[in-house]
Amino acid sequence: MTGIVLGIADSARLFGTDMDTTDMDASDMSLVTIVAPQEHVVSPFDYAVTRGDGIFEATTVWHGKPVSLEAHLRRLAHSASLMDLPRPNLTLFSQAVEEIIAQYDDPEPGPILRILVSRGLDADTGIGRTGSGLPHVWMFLDAHGALHQTRAISLASLTRGYSADITQRAPWLLLGAKTLSYAVNMAMHRECDRRHVDDAVTVTEDGFVLECPNSSIVAQYGNHLVTPNPDIGILHGTSQRELFSFMAQEGGSWEYRKLPLPQLQEADRLYMTHGGWVIPVSSLDDRRYQVDESFVEQANTAIHSGRTEKDALLVRPRD
Amino acid sequence: MTGIVLGIADSARLFGTDMDTTDMDASDMSLVTIVAPQEHVVSPFDYAVTRGDGIFEATTVWHGKPVSLEAHLRRLAHSASLMDLPRPNLTLFSQAVEEIIAQYDDPEPGPILRILVSRGLDADTGIGRTGSGLPHVWMFLDAHGALHQTRAISLASLTRGYSADITQRAPWLLLGAKTLSYAVNMAMHRECDRRHVDDAVTVTEDGFVLECPNSSIVAQYGNHLVTPNPDIGILHGTSQRELFSFMAQEGGSWEYRKLPLPQLQEADRLYMTHGGWVIPVSSLDDRRYQVDESFVEQANTAIHSGRTEKDALLVRPRD
Repeated sequence: MTGIVLGIADSARLFGTDMDTTDMDASDMSLVTIVAPQEHVVSPFDYAVTRGDGIFEATTVWHGKPVSLEAHLRRLAHSASLMDLPRPNLTLFSQAVEEIIAQYDDPEPGPILRILVSRGLDADTGIGRTGSGLPHVWMFLDAHGALHQTRAISLASLTRGYSADITQRAPWLLLGAKTLSYAVNMAMHRECDRRHVDDAVTVTEDGFVLECPNSSIVAQYGNHLVTPNPDIGILHGTSQRELFSFMAQEGGSWEYRKLPLPQLQEADRLYMTHGGWVIPVSSLDDRRYQVDESFVEQANTAIHSGRTEKDALLVRPRD
Repeated sequence: MTGIVLGIADSARLFGTDMDTTDMDASDMSLVTIVAPQEHVVSPFDYAVTRGDGIFEATTVWHGKPVSLEAHLRRLAHSASLMDLPRPNLTLFSQAVEEIIAQYDDPEPGPILRILVSRGLDADTGIGRTGSGLPHVWMFLDAHGALHQTRAISLASLTRGYSADITQRAPWLLLGAKTLSYAVNMAMHRECDRRHVDDAVTVTEDGFVLECPNSSIVAQYGNHLVTPNPDIGILHGTSQRELFSFMAQEGGSWEYRKLPLPQLQEADRLYMTHGGWVIPVSSLDDRRYQVDESFVEQANTAIHSGRTEKDALLVRPRD
């Protein structure tokens, strides 16, 4: 059985710089070289290693179907744009993902798919100077690592250190890009361990809600869902959009807006969303929340079945 | 000739977890495995790749001597502490560096030494779960990449987005740790390219000077040098301390303090310091500065000769 599939993708084609192949029938040529997961396939002179300089996406592959794949790939393209990386060919990225999934053979129904894109070899090194200058792309599907669960979790609010208006003024802070530079996100999780909570929700210095270190936050008031507008400098959540789509299909409503922390705390229910899953929140700081397990289960079932996917692609802040 | 030396260090010994070896004569056992620089020695499941989760140091090795090595290794230990990594054994790190240098054989007198430490294999992946949980350490010496130069450079000030008091309030932001998550630092350099300047100096939202994306900033007023106090959330500059030591040896003085941007701009001269070099600044935003090439050359010669090294280790903010 193959519970971990690792592939090196053909970045010349995935980033569309190899003009000779664009007219070919892509299905005839493999886009991914599958290697043993124990193989060391990354150079220490790669920008991913020297600088955390790259982008990524991750989602669940549920019974062979990558959840919200198109939304993830569109967000990858958005991150690439914010990072001055070449524009990815999303059709070929999607084919490459299918090639990875085709190699999977494990009873676990929901392994994690991760797409890692580095800027390529570090051009400030002797090895990098001899390279192609192209990004590097690795993809893996993993049934043996941490998988998602829907147990209710506790949250603490942590400052992200920025004010709500910084994103527009300082694009070099890369807020809203999903970069490989996640050391601060990891440190937030260690801070959560120290505080004996499961995860964090970040807030601006002026008190507005942002996101969780590797997920989105959604507040429920009656049948109305609210999440912060991504223009504050956060990722646009893929699973959050699926949840909004589910709520609309069930007759409820949704909204993006600037959300002061006290208003988040006053919600009827809270959800953390990521990687194809809606996870209920049992507490935030000193406040506790009831969990509607039936709603959570129905939402996750709808998301995994693909029922909400098309509508979710249309969910965005209203101007 | 060997102009690029790449080594994988024995992290069980460098991080002192292998108790059996501590009583042995370390000089009898190699601490570093030298490999061809083209080799891919990093797993894509390493925290360095998946999360930019690690720390590093870099300096010039001048005619076989790593400049400010002890200060760099002490700073590595400080970064490890801020990142909740195990405590490095600095004596063994220093020996490992010497092993790398012993392999070098190239006419270039000043290659770059880089020490990369990752948290190890990503424990959230199936491959990481089977790992030792130890950090990974790679070191390289590189004569064929970008080397330092002392041409006068132009600077632009860019906001870092934080206020001056955030470091004490939010240690999870890792300010003052030299992490592998440098995507923002790289983005600042791309912003400099767009503005047609050579480098940046970052400032807080409330107008205090911080540092450059991969170096320190020093202002000269007469024979008095000033740099921001590291407690504002910046790295304590190794070459900056060497420059302070040089100035004191020459009869001048130095000071760490909170430095408003206008006071930096009003300096007689400005220097960017990093990797064993003092580099003169010709302009900052709209203001131009004269360059004392003789002073710069004397400072660099003193630093590279080792004349300033011992004194530099004693240079720190006065309480």
